Amino acid sequence: MRQEEALKIVKKQLTDHRYQHTLGVMDTAVELAERFGADVEKARLAAIFHDYAKFRPKEEMKSLILEQNLGEDLLHYGSELWHAPVGAYLVKKEVGIDDEEILEAIRTHTSGRIDMSLLEKVIFLADYIEPGRHFPGVEEVRETAEQDLDEAVKQAIMNTITFLMRRNQLVYPDTLHTYNDIVSQQGGK
Amino acid sequence: MRQEEALKIVKKQLTDHRYQHTLGVMDTAVELAERFGADVEKARLAAIFHDYAKFRPKEEMKSLILEQNLGEDLLHYGSELWHAPVGAYLVKKEVGIDDEEILEAIRTHTSGRIDMSLLEKVIFLADYIEPGRHFPGVEEVRETAEQDLDEAVKQAIMNTITFLMRRNQLVYPDTLHTYNDIVSQQGGK
Repeated sequence: MRQEEALKIVKKQLTDHRYQHTLGVMDTAVELAERFGADVEKARLAAIFHDYAKFRPKEEMKSLILEQNLGEDLLHYGSELWHAPVGAYLVKKEVGIDDEEILEAIRTHTSGRIDMSLLEKVIFLADYIEPGRHFPGVEEVRETAEQDLDEAVKQAIMNTITFLMRRNQLVYPDTLHTYNDIVSQQGGK
Repeated sequence: MRQEEALKIVKKQLTDHRYQHTLGVMDTAVELAERFGADVEKARLAAIFHDYAKFRPKEEMKSLILEQNLGEDLLHYGSELWHAPVGAYLVKKEVGIDDEEILEAIRTHTSGRIDMSLLEKVIFLADYIEPGRHFPGVEEVRETAEQDLDEAVKQAIMNTITFLMRRNQLVYPDTLHTYNDIVSQQGGK
């Protein structure tokens, strides 16, 4: 699918603000894919569609998670996580994208998971560092992303866990598992 | 078992420094038990023996974890966690304490777990805030512990997770689960 066509489809699903964010994620994902050797066209499409389900009603997302077995445990955690697996499901069903690597990158872009692929890491990180993001610590992660994809993903996760804990919010276990997985692979313990 | 006898037994297992820490945990645990209505004598004994296995050789701890099924997954995480379940096992076997509440408090004093008992929380927290502890954030946790046991345990866990992440160390999932469990019980999400 061409970029223009994909953007046209996703624009209808998003607010203007979120569409601008999506454009930022797309550019950043393409850049990261080129830098770290991921498939650039898959990165572009995964980025364009990563927030496809962001504005679906909570009840619809909840039903899909239950009916399509998208991970019932998600329902015990913040609803901000739901749009990722629901998005992967709907992008396949409604848009017709069936590339499993792209769908997996959409599915894990908020929580992360153990053994993330290169493409998944690119989308996860692009979502965190695209130019529209302005939270504390993001500049440091951008600098790390110039050199080291894993380290940058890890820093983004550490920031996220710290942010959630400070706000007294639940932390989805897969996010910690992703941190532990990267630390292990880096030889830490 | 009387305090004197228990201290005599544990003194042989510890360095002077760790014995002083144990006395601090004992006094703090008794104080917390009185404040929050836990069994004071159980708190005293659990505190005295909480670090019983602290100086056992790593190989011995590893063998016991495997042979006695004390939680094989622990072996993938920092060895600082091992003395807690090994301690619970050895305190029963070598000292003859068979009160399951006391043993459970020893077992979970480093990692925490979901659904901690009052006694477990008292020992976990006493270990963190006893007067010999001087790390960043401990004073705030001491103040919280004047009023709110759960909130103090949660703060201690948040500090621990942040500390481990800053040092690029693995975080044992049960520790995050304990945080999430307390946040859920507090009505957060």
